[in-house]
Amino acid sequence: MAKEITSRDQDYSQWYVDIVKKANLAEHSAVRGCMVIKPHGYAVWENMRDQLDRMFKDTGHVNAYFPLFIPKSFLSKEAQHVEGFAKECAVITHHRLMNDPNGGGVVVDPDSKLEEELIVRPTSETIIWDTYRTWINSYRDLPLLINQWANVVRWEMRTRLFLRTTEFLWQEGHTAHATKEEAIEETLTILDVYAKFAEEYMAMPVIKGIKTANERFAGADETYCIEALMQDGKALQAGTSHFLGQNFAKAFDVKFLNENNEQEYVWASSWGVSTRLVGGLIMTHSDDDGLVLPPKLAPTQVIIVPIPKPAAEIDEAAEKIMNALRAKGIRVKYDTDQKKRPGFKFAEHEMHGTPIRLGIGARDLANGQVEVARRDTKDKTNQPVEGIADYVANLLDEIQQNLFNRAVQYRADHTTTVDNFDDFQSVLDSKGGFVSAHWDGTTETELKIKELTKATIRCIPLDGELEDGKCVLTGKPSRQRVLFARAY
Amino acid sequence: MAKEITSRDQDYSQWYVDIVKKANLAEHSAVRGCMVIKPHGYAVWENMRDQLDRMFKDTGHVNAYFPLFIPKSFLSKEAQHVEGFAKECAVITHHRLMNDPNGGGVVVDPDSKLEEELIVRPTSETIIWDTYRTWINSYRDLPLLINQWANVVRWEMRTRLFLRTTEFLWQEGHTAHATKEEAIEETLTILDVYAKFAEEYMAMPVIKGIKTANERFAGADETYCIEALMQDGKALQAGTSHFLGQNFAKAFDVKFLNENNEQEYVWASSWGVSTRLVGGLIMTHSDDDGLVLPPKLAPTQVIIVPIPKPAAEIDEAAEKIMNALRAKGIRVKYDTDQKKRPGFKFAEHEMHGTPIRLGIGARDLANGQVEVARRDTKDKTNQPVEGIADYVANLLDEIQQNLFNRAVQYRADHTTTVDNFDDFQSVLDSKGGFVSAHWDGTTETELKIKELTKATIRCIPLDGELEDGKCVLTGKPSRQRVLFARAY
Repeated sequence: MAKEITSRDQDYSQWYVDIVKKANLAEHSAVRGCMVIKPHGYAVWENMRDQLDRMFKDTGHVNAYFPLFIPKSFLSKEAQHVEGFAKECAVITHHRLMNDPNGGGVVVDPDSKLEEELIVRPTSETIIWDTYRTWINSYRDLPLLINQWANVVRWEMRTRLFLRTTEFLWQEGHTAHATKEEAIEETLTILDVYAKFAEEYMAMPVIKGIKTANERFAGADETYCIEALMQDGKALQAGTSHFLGQNFAKAFDVKFLNENNEQEYVWASSWGVSTRLVGGLIMTHSDDDGLVLPPKLAPTQVIIVPIPKPAAEIDEAAEKIMNALRAKGIRVKYDTDQKKRPGFKFAEHEMHGTPIRLGIGARDLANGQVEVARRDTKDKTNQPVEGIADYVANLLDEIQQNLFNRAVQYRADHTTTVDNFDDFQSVLDSKGGFVSAHWDGTTETELKIKELTKATIRCIPLDGELEDGKCVLTGKPSRQRVLFARAY
Repeated sequence: MAKEITSRDQDYSQWYVDIVKKANLAEHSAVRGCMVIKPHGYAVWENMRDQLDRMFKDTGHVNAYFPLFIPKSFLSKEAQHVEGFAKECAVITHHRLMNDPNGGGVVVDPDSKLEEELIVRPTSETIIWDTYRTWINSYRDLPLLINQWANVVRWEMRTRLFLRTTEFLWQEGHTAHATKEEAIEETLTILDVYAKFAEEYMAMPVIKGIKTANERFAGADETYCIEALMQDGKALQAGTSHFLGQNFAKAFDVKFLNENNEQEYVWASSWGVSTRLVGGLIMTHSDDDGLVLPPKLAPTQVIIVPIPKPAAEIDEAAEKIMNALRAKGIRVKYDTDQKKRPGFKFAEHEMHGTPIRLGIGARDLANGQVEVARRDTKDKTNQPVEGIADYVANLLDEIQQNLFNRAVQYRADHTTTVDNFDDFQSVLDSKGGFVSAHWDGTTETELKIKELTKATIRCIPLDGELEDGKCVLTGKPSRQRVLFARAY
């Protein structure tokens, strides 16, 4: 089975495609750019969604649901916003089909033309801020801390499963505040939630930072982000949190009466992560034998395989072990399929990224033992059945931590500080990764560097120290290093 | 607060609108026919969704996600299916906007016209069966038991919040089987899941039955349904489960190699419930003071109100009670808002349908008591703080059961057996409800009765007994009574 996967060394891009396919995560659909998320891929997304949802609720947010469609005129109300999204949107112009009177099959009924076209939401700031106008009257109505789980559509010309698709699933938070400070605080609170989720659940280390003006969300005053590094040395923007200032409040005329009885425009944030995170998860941990999943997000954490096949005493032992594991909240399954041999099952569960495999054979069992195989290191050991639940629970934690440590080490090995443009280019061309360099702060230089090297400024790190230096391209003065990388 | 609600007697339809608005469940959006589901309404839907999801998983189903868009040509492949949906669909014809060169603002870019129009899914049989073609090769690949949580769009001309909206949220199950018997069994398994969910969680009694040919899903061989009765005597179709035969397998050429090594078309079912259920929930239990929610689905099951306001000893008692309730898995909140007086809070929580309210005042507390108010009966009693968690847990069960019993009683009082058309009409015009009558089995008679009385055949009850009789309209022979009603 594993041999059907292209190795990472050979062709990283094809390796990714192979993993997504062979691990049954997703596939392209008959609709250009849209994917089908298969059950195993969706189960991973469900775990991510449920955990994020708990974290949003723990920080005071509630869910709601806004319409899929946005009137064309709404998009136009915020100038930068329409500029950012108009070129890639699905436009609904009619609401009925009919039988072609000339026998040409089913055609669009010309009489059903809409007075105003509707856009399938690429993001929901406009429809939500139009709604908030009636919800917000006084400071007593603030803050509004609302999140939405939804599908959105951006008409992408070049798509890659999970990483960039025309339709994708995501959450989008849209909050409203009485003060600028509070809105910025919210933006940063969510950035922390995202970083915590990425590191503690996805085991994917991230850099928290600020986007340059050029990379900012269309309509934001400031875009904060978390940036991760994939195994091929390319960066992945994993989540963004925007401080929107009063831009949407002004575009949609959303004012509130403050405590001094004065009308003021409302301050806003918006933030989102998407099914793109599944792509990041795959690329951070997986290997040439298939998917590797961090235990906290694995749909099945432990798979038990009977060797060579189910039998009364093996079934009984498996049942006991399952009960003990489930009592600890561990997600476990027993693979009783009689049509497949153990070796085939081993490869299959490896491919699907199940963190721990327990092999139960009659001989081991007679010695009071089972075989424990880790997916991350491929290590196998025999362990006593007695106390196996504690052993497995600890091992799941250890695997989670090991995956994170491994990714942190990879990132450390692939983050390079450079001070001249020759080094800048040669690092990008040799080992890739993050390049920490001085930049003169202009969009012109940023674009020139992108043109020359395909690297973009991923972010200005929040924990970066001020340090006088010279721009790696222009030699002009700079006060802080920024992180460059080629990116997804 | 309550006085802002129209009474049911005065105008049931306006009462419903008032409840949805005043209980902060949903509102109309700027997009014709689409609703905004507000946080309180969405929290109810989340509880419904999570419970249904558990029940689907417990019966062996997994979730996946298929594209929002359906190529026009797919819809046309199943003749009845396109007939049923073509007249009410959102059609995407372009994928880009541009600035009008003549200064007319943002307009559709004519150069972005799609080669083939895309339809926003009204239901996903076609795109899913097109996908299943590559997933199913042999009997080993069957059954496929897949569910999807999604938004769908049907271009409705007359909409009502939750009950009929252009966009709505739902789940749609799409299963594939090797035999007809297995597909029918699946269809009925899900019908049972739906009935159990409606009765045990929504406290809404339902009749399980079969739809007539005229009311069948477009593309199904047989449609099973659960039908509920609202407080105004009108019926609500609450869920449907379709046996699709081999219709979609044939339309999309989905065959499998059976155990005898022969190619055969796959058998199918599909089934769905939607946010319409929230409308059914509202109309089954609520009263002239606001929303009434069954405890199992209430976002907040118990609200604690300090009387007249928070104070050290009251806070402390509330904290203890909350901990005791949470230890039992009860969802409880403490309303510490200092800007509102107790009377206002009482009305507000009544409006929102919180099943139990605990009032904690200093004097009661000195006597070791709190006030317990039930939302369903409006009864208030003083109860000892000692053991309050057990008392509340039992009371929640009692409220759940009481709501169900009340609805069963209402339905019994509004189900009438009639044997002639005069009675048929007068029952419908006086008390409404279900009318059990003989019908000659023809679509012609069914439509004639609808034309004369606005009543439709809700279903042929599954537990109906065979009984010779004469059609209530034509006098022609009939072998079984069917249930008529005016319906939403």
